[in-house]
Amino acid sequence: MNRIINDPDHVVEDAIQGYLKAHPEYFAATDNARVLKYPAAPIAGKVGIVTGGGSGHEPAFLGYIGKNMLDAVAIGEIFSSPTAGAFLDAFKAADSGAGVACLYGNYAGDNMNVKMAMKKAAAAGIAVKTVVANDDVASAPANEIEKRRGVAGEILMWKIGAAAAAQGYDLDGVIGAAQKAIDNCRSIGVGLSSCTIPAVGKPNFHIADGKMEIGIGHHGEPGIEVSPIQSASAMASTMLDFVLNDMPLGKGQEVALLISGLGATPVMELYIYYAEIEKRLTERGVKVHRRYVGNYFTSLEMMGVTLTLMKLDTQLKTLLDMPAHSLGLTQVE
Amino acid sequence: MNRIINDPDHVVEDAIQGYLKAHPEYFAATDNARVLKYPAAPIAGKVGIVTGGGSGHEPAFLGYIGKNMLDAVAIGEIFSSPTAGAFLDAFKAADSGAGVACLYGNYAGDNMNVKMAMKKAAAAGIAVKTVVANDDVASAPANEIEKRRGVAGEILMWKIGAAAAAQGYDLDGVIGAAQKAIDNCRSIGVGLSSCTIPAVGKPNFHIADGKMEIGIGHHGEPGIEVSPIQSASAMASTMLDFVLNDMPLGKGQEVALLISGLGATPVMELYIYYAEIEKRLTERGVKVHRRYVGNYFTSLEMMGVTLTLMKLDTQLKTLLDMPAHSLGLTQVE
Repeated sequence: MNRIINDPDHVVEDAIQGYLKAHPEYFAATDNARVLKYPAAPIAGKVGIVTGGGSGHEPAFLGYIGKNMLDAVAIGEIFSSPTAGAFLDAFKAADSGAGVACLYGNYAGDNMNVKMAMKKAAAAGIAVKTVVANDDVASAPANEIEKRRGVAGEILMWKIGAAAAAQGYDLDGVIGAAQKAIDNCRSIGVGLSSCTIPAVGKPNFHIADGKMEIGIGHHGEPGIEVSPIQSASAMASTMLDFVLNDMPLGKGQEVALLISGLGATPVMELYIYYAEIEKRLTERGVKVHRRYVGNYFTSLEMMGVTLTLMKLDTQLKTLLDMPAHSLGLTQVE
Repeated sequence: MNRIINDPDHVVEDAIQGYLKAHPEYFAATDNARVLKYPAAPIAGKVGIVTGGGSGHEPAFLGYIGKNMLDAVAIGEIFSSPTAGAFLDAFKAADSGAGVACLYGNYAGDNMNVKMAMKKAAAAGIAVKTVVANDDVASAPANEIEKRRGVAGEILMWKIGAAAAAQGYDLDGVIGAAQKAIDNCRSIGVGLSSCTIPAVGKPNFHIADGKMEIGIGHHGEPGIEVSPIQSASAMASTMLDFVLNDMPLGKGQEVALLISGLGATPVMELYIYYAEIEKRLTERGVKVHRRYVGNYFTSLEMMGVTLTLMKLDTQLKTLLDMPAHSLGLTQVE
């Protein structure tokens, strides 16, 4: 394991120190070492936007703290949920009195800890409502959508929810917009190689050379199928079929398209893949209104790619197009 | 080799199609399939800023085309120089009549092809002057500085040269600013793993598990020393010593600090490393005026990190701080 770390059991703390030192424009410390906030948070009158999740997915989650983006993030160990205490302290860091929208992904640990934190927040007089992202079509069939995991679609959910809050939506309005965003999102990932958690020191799953795993999760959760590796073209067809079978897109439909590398896939390959996806969408008469291509939601040094499509309407387009500044996503127009 | 490609001999062309489709705000095609330009280029009255280099270093080189950034880029095969014809066509795409500053890295192929392109440009009435980046302290001793390679310091050279051009500097002024930028830059890299060129299909060099190679080049050029892997802290000391022995920094000196991953190193590790570097600079009384941490100049899926320091004066600070927009570097303040 060739890594740039000090103590393998201390990588999250050490990285947080780096983020704080490097980007005072985005990050301020709080009393909880596992909670970072936007320096201006809580912003008077604005609904606070909070998320939380395991580390190792950088720039997710903390990299989406910013202007018209997240107000506070609860930070977990690598690939592990933050504690209930961290979620609670993130709520406190984000709440200006207008309430908090906690927009997070559907994982057992996060569900449990958010629920506990919400009880304590209610006792402290902080109104918290949630949206639970479940955009990964590979993680459960369509009739068990509540079992699906949240993956890269979370980024679009945060962008929409945060823009709604910045535009002055109240808590129910923010929750409604974020829920619509994730309801309109579908994602699927393909893994080409594994990754190693520093404190474990060896890969926690295995993908053989020449193989790919369709539907793999962000922590190596088993996918739908292991197959011989396909060309970018065939991979694009396979992945797009999974998404469109679950969420058909009619001619003239506009979408946001998010293609994220899982960490080690060279950026040029993400663009080879992008061209294949856009071609197929165009052939179907679907228009890509806005696209994001890069390492938006990673899994340490895994190779692979995730595809996320969000169906747009006028409201979602307006919110998506709002300028935003953060480490992971900056949009000037 | 688990990759997201179609034809291994066609990855550069396929990726260019993706870039063009995904980012019409940054990229326009030219008559030369291996030259991309900023859509607004050539910009009337402005000195054109051109670079070129091999592919596989994304977002370098083409990702630095943008507003107040590069006007045109000549694109080579993976890890290979662009042709003289591509450099010439990039000059043509960037020249508004105010001349072209070709700011590129010190590699034999690039030197030869730029020289040939300049002869043809002169015949076509285009004034071209060059700055040749040589920021890699590991690639030759201080008394043979003209043999040193250009590495991630090129990004700071482009930023400075492009800002000077955007501020209305004439060709000699732009060249002077870019030359000062690279003269004030020193870089060193550490490699932790190799990478595989798709058309080759196997790694072209090897780094053993548990080892690191200090001073490795962006194409696996041999470094100064192979050693057992060090902690982030020790690695920071080792690398900073190489830089500071070559370019001493006095107390009160302000610097720009660029830390780039080589592709597969998780972003959280770059921040662990950042904290170690900043701590050591602060202890010496050196102030980090602006920092860049991320995958700015990669080598496919290599693991490792490069450290670049640029010594600042008033002119360089003003130019560095100018807003800029590109895929690889966006700066709003």
